Amino acid sequence: MCIPDKEFRERIQRTQAAMAGSGLDAILAFSSESEPALVRYYSDYWPSFETTAVLIPATGKPALLIGPESLVFASARIKIESVIQLMDFRESSQPDYPGSKLPTWEDVFSEYHVTKLGIAGWHMFPHAIYRNLEKAFKGAEIVDADAVVRSVMITKSEAELNCLREAARISEIGLKAILDNIKPGLTEVQVAGLATAAMLNSGAEATGYPVWCCSGPNSRQAISRPTHRPIQTREIIQVCIGAKVAGYSGSIGRPLVLGSCDDKLRRFLEVGHEAEELTISLLRAGTPASEVAKKVHGFIKDRGYGDTILYGPAHGCGQMECEYPFIETSSTFDLVENMTFNVDVFLSNSEMGFRWEDAVIVKSGEAEQLSSLGREVNVIPV
Amino acid sequence: MCIPDKEFRERIQRTQAAMAGSGLDAILAFSSESEPALVRYYSDYWPSFETTAVLIPATGKPALLIGPESLVFASARIKIESVIQLMDFRESSQPDYPGSKLPTWEDVFSEYHVTKLGIAGWHMFPHAIYRNLEKAFKGAEIVDADAVVRSVMITKSEAELNCLREAARISEIGLKAILDNIKPGLTEVQVAGLATAAMLNSGAEATGYPVWCCSGPNSRQAISRPTHRPIQTREIIQVCIGAKVAGYSGSIGRPLVLGSCDDKLRRFLEVGHEAEELTISLLRAGTPASEVAKKVHGFIKDRGYGDTILYGPAHGCGQMECEYPFIETSSTFDLVENMTFNVDVFLSNSEMGFRWEDAVIVKSGEAEQLSSLGREVNVIPV
Repeated sequence: MCIPDKEFRERIQRTQAAMAGSGLDAILAFSSESEPALVRYYSDYWPSFETTAVLIPATGKPALLIGPESLVFASARIKIESVIQLMDFRESSQPDYPGSKLPTWEDVFSEYHVTKLGIAGWHMFPHAIYRNLEKAFKGAEIVDADAVVRSVMITKSEAELNCLREAARISEIGLKAILDNIKPGLTEVQVAGLATAAMLNSGAEATGYPVWCCSGPNSRQAISRPTHRPIQTREIIQVCIGAKVAGYSGSIGRPLVLGSCDDKLRRFLEVGHEAEELTISLLRAGTPASEVAKKVHGFIKDRGYGDTILYGPAHGCGQMECEYPFIETSSTFDLVENMTFNVDVFLSNSEMGFRWEDAVIVKSGEAEQLSSLGREVNVIPV
Repeated sequence: MCIPDKEFRERIQRTQAAMAGSGLDAILAFSSESEPALVRYYSDYWPSFETTAVLIPATGKPALLIGPESLVFASARIKIESVIQLMDFRESSQPDYPGSKLPTWEDVFSEYHVTKLGIAGWHMFPHAIYRNLEKAFKGAEIVDADAVVRSVMITKSEAELNCLREAARISEIGLKAILDNIKPGLTEVQVAGLATAAMLNSGAEATGYPVWCCSGPNSRQAISRPTHRPIQTREIIQVCIGAKVAGYSGSIGRPLVLGSCDDKLRRFLEVGHEAEELTISLLRAGTPASEVAKKVHGFIKDRGYGDTILYGPAHGCGQMECEYPFIETSSTFDLVENMTFNVDVFLSNSEMGFRWEDAVIVKSGEAEQLSSLGREVNVIPV
């Protein structure tokens, strides 16, 4: 399961086409260990410890920029020819590497002739590197180029869709490992570990994000990390599970209950489940994204749970579990065939919360659903 | 296993003491999902998806700054009282959160009266946030404050040492799971998964970094991520394994060989093993760090392997597997009791490479070694 080499070349070409008319001489697409999407998209390399960027000139060939320790690692993976090592991409412990003679930004730009540079990954691009670019690159303009790159990445190719399908399949294997082995007294970390172990053993290259389980009062956490709290009966045990396949991240969110489930809890879970089904039914090419959000939030409000809404009800997915664009009541785009979303209905009150999450592919008719295992109120006997 | 609440208060106080005379009115210590060290150190919170910072004024109480979705998550963990949500710390998919009314930087600074602001985590601090700070905060000076924070974090308390001891103990459980179950044909990901699963089941809160296995030609990668390559006999199978305990990251690096090991390979592995033992023997309070690096690199050169050196032979550890300071031939500091290091001997040639790695605590006499399992040339029968 992978992206063909040809597609990496096309991605560069499509980005260069999208740059036309922008006045940009080049785009620098930045990534880090936990935000690897852009560099993986253009080069198939994804960093660890060090940071990285791909330099895409308006015409001609791109270059991968990496730190002092990643040359062999990056070279074994990349789909672009040129690699340049720069001290600016070294790891956070900031070693000196005495004796190393890496090129400077001046060296890099002497070859690329850039007077207007776009940065993709703008929100996370380090100021320290920005300042070095400004110094190396006097009088040049440096601007946010996220919109250019997003226009290229926002719909998925068949190869990308296949990676997401496989990521969803393996994420279901992770969920199944939990459904088959969960019991009171396991810690949240141990529950998350069941899914992680099963996915790494079954074809995932990694998890798509730090998998979590949050239970009882912790289930109210919209973003979470698992703790050593032992899970109990009659409470929400929320699991969020995602496998990574060739750079593409799956995600499945399920609230589970051990033992028995009282009526109040069941009603709350059912509203979330119905809101997820409603969202999926509304995701069709041509529909304004804001209309989906308004209808789903309207449904939740009509059921009396309006104050439990934090966001949503869906967000883009692909390289990242959560990537641009969000489907919100303020969204200004229409859905397009082969956009991919994680439907993500998170509701919480003062006592508990949950997330129903599954990936879908937008089509002209019904959306293609990539996962469905356990999409029901799961009350597991103990 | 945890850090006492009192120690979190002392960390703030020691940082405020270190700020005295610097002219700084406040320090903003920044963290991300993959670089959580600073915010975890000051607050016990560690982010996922969103970014975060701790604002430490020169006098008075600190505040945790987080994004729109992390309030319940952060509040369940933090050891400081004040939490402020800011849109600048939202996740990379950049949702709008229509209707949310989060404070601005102007609001934050109206309370804190800052004219000179230090940034810790300088090398990764986003330019987009820096620019918003500059706008909110006209005429103020914004400077790199990493040196202040590093002076506070560089030696470890007994509670921190206990977390590192426990992280090393659990990392050995991860290594043992590999030693007991490794066999030809497993993929690198599956081998890494064996250790990950064992550590998550045995008290780790997470892995300290993305655990890896790299084999055959991939063993040359100084930084790596596991692939779907099946491991084979008679080649180096490098495993790098670390458990995280209460924020502290362990790490053990071992080259393994399945089946049989030819003499050339054994000699190369032995030089690395001896270099690690030599490094450990040299790590004593009072010794100049550069002297350790020079002696160890001298030893490796004397054995005829000088061209296989990339860096090292040790680096700080604590919250991160690799944190400031590095022990390099250019280092300008002396070793101090209760500094902690990962001894990290990485050597590679054109065919293969390996890393011997274990954590130690610097003492006035012999260093305390936190792990030793499998610190020998491991040739595993098949």
